[in-house]
Amino acid sequence: MENKNESITRQEDDFAQWYTDVCKKAELMDYSSVKGFIIYRPYGYAIWEEIQNYLNKQFKKEGVENVYMPLVIPSSLFDKEKEHVEGFAPECLVATKGGKYTLEDELIIRPTSETLFCEHFSKIIKSYRDLPKQYNQWCSVVRWEKTTRPFLRGSEFLWQEGHTMYETEEEARKDALKMLEIYDTLGRDLLAIPFVKGQKTDKEKFSGAQETYSIEALMPDGKALQSGTTHYFGNGFAKAFGIQFLGRNNKLENPHQTSWGVSTRLIGSIIMAHGDDNGLVLPPKIAPIQVVIIPIQQKRSEVLVKAKQYFDLLNKAGIRVKLDDSDHTPGWKYSEYEMKGVPVRLEVGPRDIENGVCVLAKRNDGQKLVTKEADVVDEVNRLLDVIHHELYEKSAKYLYEHITEVHTLDELKLALDKGGYAKMMWCGDQACEDKIKELYQATARCIPFDQLPFDDKCPVCGKKASKVVFFARAY
Amino acid sequence: MENKNESITRQEDDFAQWYTDVCKKAELMDYSSVKGFIIYRPYGYAIWEEIQNYLNKQFKKEGVENVYMPLVIPSSLFDKEKEHVEGFAPECLVATKGGKYTLEDELIIRPTSETLFCEHFSKIIKSYRDLPKQYNQWCSVVRWEKTTRPFLRGSEFLWQEGHTMYETEEEARKDALKMLEIYDTLGRDLLAIPFVKGQKTDKEKFSGAQETYSIEALMPDGKALQSGTTHYFGNGFAKAFGIQFLGRNNKLENPHQTSWGVSTRLIGSIIMAHGDDNGLVLPPKIAPIQVVIIPIQQKRSEVLVKAKQYFDLLNKAGIRVKLDDSDHTPGWKYSEYEMKGVPVRLEVGPRDIENGVCVLAKRNDGQKLVTKEADVVDEVNRLLDVIHHELYEKSAKYLYEHITEVHTLDELKLALDKGGYAKMMWCGDQACEDKIKELYQATARCIPFDQLPFDDKCPVCGKKASKVVFFARAY
Repeated sequence: MENKNESITRQEDDFAQWYTDVCKKAELMDYSSVKGFIIYRPYGYAIWEEIQNYLNKQFKKEGVENVYMPLVIPSSLFDKEKEHVEGFAPECLVATKGGKYTLEDELIIRPTSETLFCEHFSKIIKSYRDLPKQYNQWCSVVRWEKTTRPFLRGSEFLWQEGHTMYETEEEARKDALKMLEIYDTLGRDLLAIPFVKGQKTDKEKFSGAQETYSIEALMPDGKALQSGTTHYFGNGFAKAFGIQFLGRNNKLENPHQTSWGVSTRLIGSIIMAHGDDNGLVLPPKIAPIQVVIIPIQQKRSEVLVKAKQYFDLLNKAGIRVKLDDSDHTPGWKYSEYEMKGVPVRLEVGPRDIENGVCVLAKRNDGQKLVTKEADVVDEVNRLLDVIHHELYEKSAKYLYEHITEVHTLDELKLALDKGGYAKMMWCGDQACEDKIKELYQATARCIPFDQLPFDDKCPVCGKKASKVVFFARAY
Repeated sequence: MENKNESITRQEDDFAQWYTDVCKKAELMDYSSVKGFIIYRPYGYAIWEEIQNYLNKQFKKEGVENVYMPLVIPSSLFDKEKEHVEGFAPECLVATKGGKYTLEDELIIRPTSETLFCEHFSKIIKSYRDLPKQYNQWCSVVRWEKTTRPFLRGSEFLWQEGHTMYETEEEARKDALKMLEIYDTLGRDLLAIPFVKGQKTDKEKFSGAQETYSIEALMPDGKALQSGTTHYFGNGFAKAFGIQFLGRNNKLENPHQTSWGVSTRLIGSIIMAHGDDNGLVLPPKIAPIQVVIIPIQQKRSEVLVKAKQYFDLLNKAGIRVKLDDSDHTPGWKYSEYEMKGVPVRLEVGPRDIENGVCVLAKRNDGQKLVTKEADVVDEVNRLLDVIHHELYEKSAKYLYEHITEVHTLDELKLALDKGGYAKMMWCGDQACEDKIKELYQATARCIPFDQLPFDDKCPVCGKKASKVVFFARAY
């Protein structure tokens, strides 16, 4: 066994090191021998599977169908949309040999699949009757990164990428916003993470998109973490790839496109948003183990029998439960499952059995309560629900306490140094974004949908400003 | 719309062309611009998802955990197990550039992940308490192929690869056989395909394995299709990768390893095993659409209302049902869903409504029956079950009629020309396998578990023979 009982770095001593310690010691991931390509261990991958299950259901309700596109893109195909290739070329992994042969057309390991989807769409879309197409794929993508961190930035990561084509601009715009809403709800209902959401500035948008929208989480170190994006493309790619359909007026038209994605970066969000100095704190709905049962004095046979009965009760009720009857001490087990962020610990020992009760302990705040055996399923379900809401409320409070209205560059600096979002009126000039980045290493995270102007000039250039923008330092 | 109503090539005219026609026109797949890398369209991918759901449940029961390993293998790592690298090197896709840089250690796009799992195991296995490890990953792998066919042989395909480590040889051997049993059951219970199963000869086994087992399906053109394999590795990789654990006797030992996999090749099996001149015939349990409802005279509003009621009834009962109320003719729709192999068609028109009935038609044999509205859920469930068994029985009959005992080379040739398996006594010499391949383009498919010798000499060399082997031409 690894030395999980050894203390991990404390958050306040070194937040980045705390993060890495938790990733490793909670057995979410391991490093491979290629930098930036991590191993998703069972405990980490199971979290991703919960996210997949949730999103597959939501996507299906919207009429989205899953597909699988090739892993490789011929460089000649990749070059078709100019802005797109310029954005991605510097971070591509390129295959040049197949078997014994040198490839004539080099193959790019997909960094994203717009070009592949567009080529396919150009073959299968002929008439307005073939629209909409709402496709999604679950896969890994590769972006050759110099600086990598588990889940947050990797040369390979897992994601879903949705790609759609619509008859009208209106439908496509609606789709980009609808999917953003689904991501936002995923945060609220599943991950217990509140997001700030809005539109990206032109400087920050996706290569080739007309508009990009994002959800942004705020981490305890005050930095924003972009956690999902949706894009409206107009018909630029459609034109570049010759995608045309015979419209209702019997004229050839180009369809309107969107794409949208979330990735295993969400696991990074979860770790940072909820974790503490004892390790992970998992929101109950995505916890691979929701309840761990720890028998006290388990050498006494009635204890193990009773522990097994609790296991069966909870398991039958559809709760993800684990009974740890290994020969480690109860103390070792407490630390182990605290590190792994299991939401509820159920302890049962000889005296509890005499009294017909067990003890339930909440991982997020250490509170304990005694419950009767007959009530345990209801009580656990109630606690899982309570924990979800407590985690969400705590994160939401932190978020709202770290949104600061700023009117001057000095205030901007103070707000950024405090951590979180500086809410600023912006003139719309990219030069002012560049300046803020140069001065304070902060970027425009998004232009929120709720636009309530609170000033009339841009703190950077002093010109007229009409847009509210959230600036922050970011991952 | 594509021209799905156009007739496809007939099986007896050109079986290979029939197969390709069905793949395309049933919208299971499409070609991409890179040879051998296909697009899994929604209808094809949904079949794969049904297989995934089934296997994930079976794997979980056995204690298997899902993980995700890197897409790339450094060539230095790949080289560690000699037989393995020799087997795979000729078909590797190799990346040599990352971003602007030439890679020092070339990266092989995974053709299979034994080496990655072994490297990981060497880090996380320390004691017998860490065993067993039973891991599985769902991913795509790349093998650079010259001759490719949709689902059957591709440069990229989807699969699951299980990788395990056990404390004892006995446990590992048991695992390899257990997983073969699960694959066999998948064929019987889900795909309605009977397999021949057994052990591979040394010539045909997996590069680096001590023993390989396989399930083999028999296609209507008389050729065998290897549909899944499991491997027992002994501790050869473990030694090569330095995987050691402290055993119960306090001595360092090497664990015993298996791996096992099935791929999207199973979709090829399904297409060929059950399809006919009208297209796909899908076994009900993996059919993305189990029942299609086709309204007759749908312009009459009571017809669409009733069709919708049938949809709701079946949908609520958990049956995968589609109502096609598009403006195509009923005749067009019949052809369309025959092509797509939907097991049951439900027709409802004005006269049926008057009589309180609908018509159910079976895709596999065209039989129709009239059922009362109140009975429709039961009747559909019964039919789905009947169809599954009819498909299985038909395939099983074909299989058993195409296993021929042979005693001489002439009989071997006749059996192979008839199609199917030649059941032959074999001396055990690879030279005789080579000879059969040279003469008749047939290979040893497997050494079946039921060994009932029916002769005592090898028809090739005349020497003493004690092993029953199935030879066949194969995909």
